[in-house]
Amino acid sequence: MIRYVTSGESHGKCLTAILEGIPSGLKISEDDINGDLARRQKGYGRGDRMKSIENDTVSITSGVRQGRTIGSPITLTILNRDWDNWKTIMSVEKTGEKCPQITRPRPGHADLAGILKFDTEEIRNILERSSARETAARVAVGSICKKFLSEFGIKIASYVNEIDGVKSKNVLLGIDEIILRSELSSVRCLDKSAEKLMTAAIEDAKSKGDTVGGVFTVIADGVPVGLGSHTQWDLKLDSRLACAMMSLQAIKGVEIGGGFGMARLPGSLAHDEIFYDKRRGFYRKTNNAGGIEGGISNGEQIVVRAAMKPIPSLTSPLRSVDIKTKKPSKAQAVRSDVCAVPSAAVIGEAITAIELTRVFSEKFGGDSMGEAEFNFRGYLDTLKMR
Amino acid sequence: MIRYVTSGESHGKCLTAILEGIPSGLKISEDDINGDLARRQKGYGRGDRMKSIENDTVSITSGVRQGRTIGSPITLTILNRDWDNWKTIMSVEKTGEKCPQITRPRPGHADLAGILKFDTEEIRNILERSSARETAARVAVGSICKKFLSEFGIKIASYVNEIDGVKSKNVLLGIDEIILRSELSSVRCLDKSAEKLMTAAIEDAKSKGDTVGGVFTVIADGVPVGLGSHTQWDLKLDSRLACAMMSLQAIKGVEIGGGFGMARLPGSLAHDEIFYDKRRGFYRKTNNAGGIEGGISNGEQIVVRAAMKPIPSLTSPLRSVDIKTKKPSKAQAVRSDVCAVPSAAVIGEAITAIELTRVFSEKFGGDSMGEAEFNFRGYLDTLKMR
Amino acid sequence: MIRYVTSGESHGKCLTAILEGIPSGLKISEDDINGDLARRQKGYGRGDRMKSIENDTVSITSGVRQGRTIGSPITLTILNRDWDNWKTIMSVEKTGEKCPQITRPRPGHADLAGILKFDTEEIRNILERSSARETAARVAVGSICKKFLSEFGIKIASYVNEIDGVKSKNVLLGIDEIILRSELSSVRCLDKSAEKLMTAAIEDAKSKGDTVGGVFTVIADGVPVGLGSHTQWDLKLDSRLACAMMSLQAIKGVEIGGGFGMARLPGSLAHDEIFYDKRRGFYRKTNNAGGIEGGISNGEQIVVRAAMKPIPSLTSPLRSVDIKTKKPSKAQAVRSDVCAVPSAAVIGEAITAIELTRVFSEKFGGDSMGEAEFNFRGYLDTLKMR
Amino acid sequence: MIRYVTSGESHGKCLTAILEGIPSGLKISEDDINGDLARRQKGYGRGDRMKSIENDTVSITSGVRQGRTIGSPITLTILNRDWDNWKTIMSVEKTGEKCPQITRPRPGHADLAGILKFDTEEIRNILERSSARETAARVAVGSICKKFLSEFGIKIASYVNEIDGVKSKNVLLGIDEIILRSELSSVRCLDKSAEKLMTAAIEDAKSKGDTVGGVFTVIADGVPVGLGSHTQWDLKLDSRLACAMMSLQAIKGVEIGGGFGMARLPGSLAHDEIFYDKRRGFYRKTNNAGGIEGGISNGEQIVVRAAMKPIPSLTSPLRSVDIKTKKPSKAQAVRSDVCAVPSAAVIGEAITAIELTRVFSEKFGGDSMGEAEFNFRGYLDTLKMR
Repeated sequence: MIRYVTSGESHGKCLTAILEGIPSGLKISEDDINGDLARRQKGYGRGDRMKSIENDTVSITSGVRQGRTIGSPITLTILNRDWDNWKTIMSVEKTGEKCPQITRPRPGHADLAGILKFDTEEIRNILERSSARETAARVAVGSICKKFLSEFGIKIASYVNEIDGVKSKNVLLGIDEIILRSELSSVRCLDKSAEKLMTAAIEDAKSKGDTVGGVFTVIADGVPVGLGSHTQWDLKLDSRLACAMMSLQAIKGVEIGGGFGMARLPGSLAHDEIFYDKRRGFYRKTNNAGGIEGGISNGEQIVVRAAMKPIPSLTSPLRSVDIKTKKPSKAQAVRSDVCAVPSAAVIGEAITAIELTRVFSEKFGGDSMGEAEFNFRGYLDTLKMR
Repeated sequence: MIRYVTSGESHGKCLTAILEGIPSGLKISEDDINGDLARRQKGYGRGDRMKSIENDTVSITSGVRQGRTIGSPITLTILNRDWDNWKTIMSVEKTGEKCPQITRPRPGHADLAGILKFDTEEIRNILERSSARETAARVAVGSICKKFLSEFGIKIASYVNEIDGVKSKNVLLGIDEIILRSELSSVRCLDKSAEKLMTAAIEDAKSKGDTVGGVFTVIADGVPVGLGSHTQWDLKLDSRLACAMMSLQAIKGVEIGGGFGMARLPGSLAHDEIFYDKRRGFYRKTNNAGGIEGGISNGEQIVVRAAMKPIPSLTSPLRSVDIKTKKPSKAQAVRSDVCAVPSAAVIGEAITAIELTRVFSEKFGGDSMGEAEFNFRGYLDTLKMR
Repeated sequence: MIRYVTSGESHGKCLTAILEGIPSGLKISEDDINGDLARRQKGYGRGDRMKSIENDTVSITSGVRQGRTIGSPITLTILNRDWDNWKTIMSVEKTGEKCPQITRPRPGHADLAGILKFDTEEIRNILERSSARETAARVAVGSICKKFLSEFGIKIASYVNEIDGVKSKNVLLGIDEIILRSELSSVRCLDKSAEKLMTAAIEDAKSKGDTVGGVFTVIADGVPVGLGSHTQWDLKLDSRLACAMMSLQAIKGVEIGGGFGMARLPGSLAHDEIFYDKRRGFYRKTNNAGGIEGGISNGEQIVVRAAMKPIPSLTSPLRSVDIKTKKPSKAQAVRSDVCAVPSAAVIGEAITAIELTRVFSEKFGGDSMGEAEFNFRGYLDTLKMR
Repeated sequence: MIRYVTSGESHGKCLTAILEGIPSGLKISEDDINGDLARRQKGYGRGDRMKSIENDTVSITSGVRQGRTIGSPITLTILNRDWDNWKTIMSVEKTGEKCPQITRPRPGHADLAGILKFDTEEIRNILERSSARETAARVAVGSICKKFLSEFGIKIASYVNEIDGVKSKNVLLGIDEIILRSELSSVRCLDKSAEKLMTAAIEDAKSKGDTVGGVFTVIADGVPVGLGSHTQWDLKLDSRLACAMMSLQAIKGVEIGGGFGMARLPGSLAHDEIFYDKRRGFYRKTNNAGGIEGGISNGEQIVVRAAMKPIPSLTSPLRSVDIKTKKPSKAQAVRSDVCAVPSAAVIGEAITAIELTRVFSEKFGGDSMGEAEFNFRGYLDTLKMR
């Protein structure tokens, strides 16, 4: 049973995540995770904070020994490299010193709703946790899950479809090619000419003190038929992916496969007809379903797409109200990025990996990697006999 | 703590749902729920089964006494009015009789993935549960939640934006007007001229043995600021709504507020600026956020949109494979609707009501309606003093 | 992932339970469950209600088809055979008629705490759900779980150790012998001479209008090493058993293996030393641990013991207070049993079976019985190679 | 909604706990928690490791700012002061060095069941997590919960009833007196003469290389009527307390109130009769129920008792088998305590505080301390009007 939780404030001492349920015997190295953390921090349009201060590295403090998981909860810690500058403001113990207060909530953030809900005058008490910095912890968790899935031949890739309305043309590529090419692009775009327009859009927004959003896709390849279940609303694979993806900061829409586009197709064209081949077994020639039918993986690639709104922290801030004086005023300016869509795509990989690991674990059980593999192979063998 | 579960097969004896956590003292009548069940069964494009056989009525068998909830789990049962014709095929006990087997899985359904996952030769063992008939149970649950929320001034409405690519024009209406007008439209569309085109599209599809999908919107009005939480991925209101909405049969996309459209706006135009007025408190002039910022309700209307794919059961069936012979063959033809988008919108109301009740209950607690109201009013009073 | 929930009031129309997560393909018959329901209703000391009115039979309304589970949630309904006499008092809809109110809470029941918590004047609104009648639903759930476990060679037995202070002497028997003998005893006692004293104690209490409690043991035989986990507090097998057992009405104490007696032994005598034999593998000569070490089953018999307080509904009622008048008065007299310990033992079997099925399912996964068995056998084979 | 999870190995770098759901605005200081951590490490019979190396201090790394909670998850870290000596053996990354392997499982520990379950040859991979060292993290979590509860007048105390069969005589004391006296006793015993016998028993066991167990009691005072619920098996307060208490390392039995003793009383003497007084409202003169009836707190003191087996790590080790050679051999000797019952009592306080906070939070909700208090006071006022 996979469970995980994250904690930590953006400028606090560290982020922490605890991940439970990974079988014993999985090879894990902090370096693998650091690789994903670095991928999260890349991307055209990231602000200076990313470049100079953040350079996240994970520290595993439990659940892994001598290079392998031991079955107990895995603790992941990512230190705030800038902690020295925040020690007073973010002090756990009460300091005598007067900290500068943030009093002008930023539209599009949790700021205003948060202080009203938690009955605090300090917007910092909210923004520190609602910040997308939290996703570093999820990337670390997802990195372990990706490693786990890779042992079963499941690969996860991501790319950017759209930034500021600039759309990438559809490019049909194998999973390895997507992984390769997305990594080479400064905006994780598979279409070179769109990439140019995207970076130009980012530059343009930057020059205006503005921000831009976009759309990205996550693909999981090699997922066997049969993960997730149609039997209850909260067991469906698509429900879980939608939940997890929507929980990402700034995500406002989620699609599986053809998504909203499927609402415009007639039934005769929308569904993926079924074929059979002795070698391949059942298969499809199309994948509008995005690899999920009735809440169950159908053996095709899992395709999840998400829409990210433009980052709400602008250098030319929006109109707001000072919560103390109640007077109109510009929102607090907070150092931020112009565009974080490429980064969100990397985080989306992590999210997808986590949810797949969860349904994988429910179906195959297994307390050790050997046991999980035995169960997995046995199921695949059964499929072959159908 | 609100929890619910549904059970039951499409042609089984009955559907059942158990809903926990509704405070004691809420007025509930089976008739109220029956009203929503009837609304689910309406809509241009529903098949004959809907019209002739189904006419769902709920039976409450626990948790309500003398017209009011008593705090214990509420059991809702919806009998299958056609049970007599299915007694043998769906018999719990083994019957000697040979039941006709379904061997040609329908693309777009759980059929194929389901039989492989659950290792059965009987597609009926899957389709009976994956059928959207299950949503009747969720509508019944949602009906109680709507009643609960209405005690706190929260109203929920739904309408159809789009069917088969025909889009309704945007109509700006108050919540009561939306409730009224959507109910009067055969396709829950607020735009009379679009309605005509939509019904024509449905007729056209019907004549071709085809089906159509569409997009609908659910609105929750009167939701106080502060429901849901930014503090953990699975506590966010938008995550939960996305999870629940995506769990609806045939839903392939979910948006909150501006959704995918927000990915195309610059930050300077995307976010809802904050204003203050002595009488209203903090407020917005726009609602691109769809009433949720940072996973927390912000006091504006909650707006959720979902994309429904065309129904995958076609009278002119798609290509498939016979799972016994492995030979190409047309998918099983199953009596079905041409368009169920208006119905899905009604189900979407239920889904939204359930998730709102869940976060409401987490914030306000309360074992009796009186206690819940006291806590709720106290919080609103605090807000006024901000 | 096994989940279950029960609902229903003692004199309501029916009890309901929904059980999720049983793999497809398990043979289930209502008769099997009825057998356990009848066992629950037996036992020296049951009141007239048990004998005349109750004769519970289950109706499965989902999740089972043609004699086998299909993987979807299983719904179990047990009708109230006396419903006609309760239709008005327990009516869901408001009736004009004035129902007799219960105003004198019974000490030892949820009555008083319940009406204060749920803010109701009607003690019936509480006692209907807190009644041990609810356990019939759990016995039905447990009956399916016992069937499931039996497919893997796991057997569950129960017997009564003690009634009203009369203790059975320790009898060393094999599991099959325990099952046989307990069934033959009117108080599920394995010691014939103690049985006589126990029934005499019950008669004595009855003649005085009093009630008696006792202690019972549940044993699970054939449980493989490795169920449950030491890694988190809520994953431990003993925690779960304690939770479930304590949730039984009237249970005030739970022990695993040597239990409280182990607190009096020195370490040198308390623990079960480890031996090895080529044929048996690792084994123990003692079982003070009750089959669980560190929250994990260790391959020996699981032994759980529970203490049941005397039934708090007495024909010579205890002192209480009328909640309307606030005047001292005798507690409401409610038809009840003199002793329900034998019955509780049967319920304890169900409880134990459910929790074992849960941990079994977590370790072995499996969506079909074939898959679960393949995984289970594979694990056992690995154990043999250690 | 209160949730918590712990992680960390006994000799790993640190223990970690993440606690969610504490309202914003609660005053928290690391020193308060350190006080409880020190209390856990005290007690006659603790081994040298406790005295010399452990001297636990907590570091809060999230969820608290400027002395108060902010509503986000609270992270608690307790460093291993002896880490330098374990860096290689417990290294996360693979070290070239050959670590000494533990191959002789200790009876009474998770050792053997754990390596078979998780398919590892390294007993250390199990014992590191199954060790009672983990409870330090739970004490830290519980310390915050105790602080939370104290804001509502709820106090928690613990004392030792029995060590190695030596029983304390019953002493009737107020909660403050219990807190005071238990703290002054080297074995948390309220009976001075029993204390002497207990310490003598510990000395005696120590001299023989043996260990001893015992029984302790936790009391929660000031708990309002109405926490927990009779409506579902997993919502009952006693179930939850039993679950949590049984999850403590070495606990083999749990009782609420009169516990097993109640099984020997007739109904006429077992239950706590109900009285009423204008000033006090409803009250009892006895508390055999231990403050819980029907799974709901009844306003009297919550009384939980637990039996702890003797520590299974003996300096004169038990018989075991070498898992490599399969030859009989003495179990691995691990530095350990002779008696940890006083310590377990302190941990029991933490456990009880956590579970009470959980049910408190479900009933009263509240995102800020102010909101929780408003809701709490409002409920108490309603009670007064009954």
